Amino acid sequence: MLWTNTLIPTLRTAPKDVEATSHQLMLRAGYIRQLSSGVYDYLPLGCRVIKKVESLIREEMFRAGADEVLLPAIHPAEIWKRTGRYEALGEDKFAFKNRSGQEYVLGPTHEEIITELVAASTKSYKDFPLTLFQIQTKFRDELRPRFGVIRSKEFIMKDAYSFDCDEAGLEKSFRKMAEAYRRIFTRSGLSYEVVEADPGLMGGKVSQEFMVRSPYGEDTIAHCKKCGYTVSRDIARRSFEAAEPKHGDKPYEAFDTPDLKSIEELCRRFKLKPEELVKTIIYIADGKPVAACVAGGHEVNEGKLRQLLGAEAIRLANAEEIEELTKAPLGFSGPVGLKGVTIVLDADILRMKNFYTGANEKDKHFRNVSVARDFNYDLVGDIRFVAAGDSCPSCKGRLELVTTMEIGHIFKLGTRYTKALNASFLDDKGMERDVIMGCYGIGVNRIIAAAIEEHHDDKGIIWPLSIAPYDVVIVTLNEQDAETRKVANDLYAKLGTLGIDVLYDNRDERAGVKFNDADLIGIPLQVVISERNLKERKLELVRRKGKEASFADIAQAPQIIQDKVKVSPQP
Amino acid sequence: MLWTNTLIPTLRTAPKDVEATSHQLMLRAGYIRQLSSGVYDYLPLGCRVIKKVESLIREEMFRAGADEVLLPAIHPAEIWKRTGRYEALGEDKFAFKNRSGQEYVLGPTHEEIITELVAASTKSYKDFPLTLFQIQTKFRDELRPRFGVIRSKEFIMKDAYSFDCDEAGLEKSFRKMAEAYRRIFTRSGLSYEVVEADPGLMGGKVSQEFMVRSPYGEDTIAHCKKCGYTVSRDIARRSFEAAEPKHGDKPYEAFDTPDLKSIEELCRRFKLKPEELVKTIIYIADGKPVAACVAGGHEVNEGKLRQLLGAEAIRLANAEEIEELTKAPLGFSGPVGLKGVTIVLDADILRMKNFYTGANEKDKHFRNVSVARDFNYDLVGDIRFVAAGDSCPSCKGRLELVTTMEIGHIFKLGTRYTKALNASFLDDKGMERDVIMGCYGIGVNRIIAAAIEEHHDDKGIIWPLSIAPYDVVIVTLNEQDAETRKVANDLYAKLGTLGIDVLYDNRDERAGVKFNDADLIGIPLQVVISERNLKERKLELVRRKGKEASFADIAQAPQIIQDKVKVSPQP
Repeated sequence: MLWTNTLIPTLRTAPKDVEATSHQLMLRAGYIRQLSSGVYDYLPLGCRVIKKVESLIREEMFRAGADEVLLPAIHPAEIWKRTGRYEALGEDKFAFKNRSGQEYVLGPTHEEIITELVAASTKSYKDFPLTLFQIQTKFRDELRPRFGVIRSKEFIMKDAYSFDCDEAGLEKSFRKMAEAYRRIFTRSGLSYEVVEADPGLMGGKVSQEFMVRSPYGEDTIAHCKKCGYTVSRDIARRSFEAAEPKHGDKPYEAFDTPDLKSIEELCRRFKLKPEELVKTIIYIADGKPVAACVAGGHEVNEGKLRQLLGAEAIRLANAEEIEELTKAPLGFSGPVGLKGVTIVLDADILRMKNFYTGANEKDKHFRNVSVARDFNYDLVGDIRFVAAGDSCPSCKGRLELVTTMEIGHIFKLGTRYTKALNASFLDDKGMERDVIMGCYGIGVNRIIAAAIEEHHDDKGIIWPLSIAPYDVVIVTLNEQDAETRKVANDLYAKLGTLGIDVLYDNRDERAGVKFNDADLIGIPLQVVISERNLKERKLELVRRKGKEASFADIAQAPQIIQDKVKVSPQP
Repeated sequence: MLWTNTLIPTLRTAPKDVEATSHQLMLRAGYIRQLSSGVYDYLPLGCRVIKKVESLIREEMFRAGADEVLLPAIHPAEIWKRTGRYEALGEDKFAFKNRSGQEYVLGPTHEEIITELVAASTKSYKDFPLTLFQIQTKFRDELRPRFGVIRSKEFIMKDAYSFDCDEAGLEKSFRKMAEAYRRIFTRSGLSYEVVEADPGLMGGKVSQEFMVRSPYGEDTIAHCKKCGYTVSRDIARRSFEAAEPKHGDKPYEAFDTPDLKSIEELCRRFKLKPEELVKTIIYIADGKPVAACVAGGHEVNEGKLRQLLGAEAIRLANAEEIEELTKAPLGFSGPVGLKGVTIVLDADILRMKNFYTGANEKDKHFRNVSVARDFNYDLVGDIRFVAAGDSCPSCKGRLELVTTMEIGHIFKLGTRYTKALNASFLDDKGMERDVIMGCYGIGVNRIIAAAIEEHHDDKGIIWPLSIAPYDVVIVTLNEQDAETRKVANDLYAKLGTLGIDVLYDNRDERAGVKFNDADLIGIPLQVVISERNLKERKLELVRRKGKEASFADIAQAPQIIQDKVKVSPQP
């Protein structure tokens, strides 16, 4: 492509209020432009990177035996209601009616749509295993779009869905996809981690997240440097020593705390540290009330609590229920004197004494409370989110917390969707059974942002060859010079016939501007054509990464360039 | 791809209530499935054809010097309001608000969005010419989706936009795109016609449509077999001889026509032929009333009327205006005695006498009316849509009307959008001027439907090689036979390494089922592997088109197949 035939509106300075490095660089280098909050135009360079990433993903999907489909973006709301996700998505979805009153959802994902397709198009165990994928635009009404394409309202996903006859089949399909994901991220030049995660809204029991470390991510992983334990913070556990409750030396007593409902307010007013307080949260687990107690400054992890209780479903109690159970409004709950409620303690609390709790009375708290002496409990265990410094559950090393960005997430869904949408098959004995499903998502735009976060310097982007918009940029120092133009045009044509993606900066601009732009847009190899070097029939080749320079004879240049931009063999 | 790894749910019979051949075949051959009215899933075969067509289009766009972008599907409604198209689109668009009250339009096309992008990203005449395209999903709330993917609510378009400094530049960009379009349609195996058309809602003065003849199209072209004149019926003209008005032999008189407001009702009630009546339609042209008279059975062509009047804007008069001007309700207008209204006659009327017209009085018409004798007129000319048998305007041969389907439409827009959205540039003298724009659209899904309409037989689809989902299908007659499987697998692998797209029907199904499916899905070359032929180390090669069969030695088969599926050189 000739620079003068395309649109690369580079900016000298970063726009204001743009936090993420990748967001800044994509704007400055003319890859994207914001159309409205969380919605972006992809300019030619941005579009080329998308196509490169898409084709790399497509290759790996085909290699893993998946085939491609293309499903619609506008879905009848009715099918989302059948799985209960219409409601579960709440305001995160875009939903609308058309002129004739038909209700639609703009697809945020496609489990429902593909399951219905497969249900209608298959009947026998012979039709499985089957894995289908698509690369398609998704829509979510993000409340707070941030960091450019990292968290946006319209984005491109590769979503794949596996369909199997049994759990063993799912296991095999899941492993194939996990392997494909590893290849995709490695080939994209990303340093990533695979962590066990919480399936959340998607459903199913097992999921794995593919994460890159990034200050602009919205996830956290717990990591142990000693043994390598790495898990999403949502489900990370900690080890703790069994302990006998410590008896306090002072009797507990009530004191006035008017309108002080939160740990923060209490600490500020009475100059306390959070670790001197115990927070009591009332839940309803399978219809029965539960008081979950954790040390101040920590948060109850509902998943862990549910597991410790062996409950099916758990939810926060509402204000009315709290008032009925504790005889006090929200903000003043505590374990002392609480009747008819299962009391569950986080293990931390067994090592605390003389702590503060709510008094189950409006505007009152207790001080000097101690476990066992002042109240009994039903269960004790690990029911809070892990914190930095917690003990690793596998080696007792110290856990650290790392902010990460999710670039892929794969799920063993089981029959969550196939049951609801009647996707069944006849097995080899003629019995009808539910299809077993998995789903597998990659954010195309996030791969791009993550690659920039990992590969840049203060001058701009440094693309990995595998997903660079162009392999080579030809930079002429004096476009007015006829000989320069001739050599540049010949090289441009020759590299094209060799299948190399070349951008030729044929602008009649100052060399400084052209060098800065070349560095900013990050094409891996720069070929500089100057009158001085042409006198010796030479070109200068500069690798964007490290700016390492060398010279090549004009005649041999195409071959040398081809060698330099060869993508290393696939992993 | 192995057939057992993909999803090709072929159907033995066509679903009910499916009219178009392409729609029937795409459903029967497992290419698409309806998700909801006018919204389709593309199954693996359908998706592959889309990708083939897209890459063919992409090649030709790049060849024409255009570069690719990717613009969002959700647009802020505000930008559509700025050009006045938010209202003009009416209920044909999908529009909605999100959780925070932001109004969106689901993009039916992208003139507004790209113009705003170019306005923000360019400033000097040096930034032009610039042509950008995208291949992207569009949304229109079709009132009556029909014929499968031919008229659907969600579809893929290649839309391109050119930006130039002057009319000469636009002319050049327009010609390049027209040439690219010709190559795209020719390479896709379509017989098409290029016709002058009416720009309509898009705006601008000149447009060309690319049409294929099809009973399932929604357009009509006028064609003269003698001289080749071919124009959209919307703007087709006819030649007519000047004539002196014919005086009638009987005086005109009023008669009762209670509640008979239409030509059809009058004809039925009084056993008249439409050509005995003159229809009078009241318009407001640049604020002034006009009565347009055409022979019964014909329709006024507003564009022609506007041109004959030399008016800027024209619209139908409303019921109140008609009542005020004619002193009679809608349905009883006529030229006799009409005051203060410009009377325009279609040329047909000069050759009529003793005709019927409205009497400008409720429930009354006149019979035996003649021109000049009974009323005066202001203008006469060609103001109706052409009909079959009309005289060709260029050679006076007979025009025929042909139903066609639009597969592409290109427009010289001028400054319609650039003015409204402030896309201007500084010329070489530092003067600010509006950018001159063109736009160019191709329906990807329609190319696919059109190709099937043109290339099929009673057994199924017959794909042109250029856009076939696979080049070759390997059909084994007995998948249980180990030697058959070995030869098939070797050939499958070998063809893959030669870059040939192969589908291997490895199902353990009866030969009849596999042959029928191969014919139905329409892959250009079938390679049949039977135990009988294997004894002579031979394979059978059958061209889908014409079912012409030949044999090849196993060893030479890959080379012979490669020769047979080579796409002929690009035009």
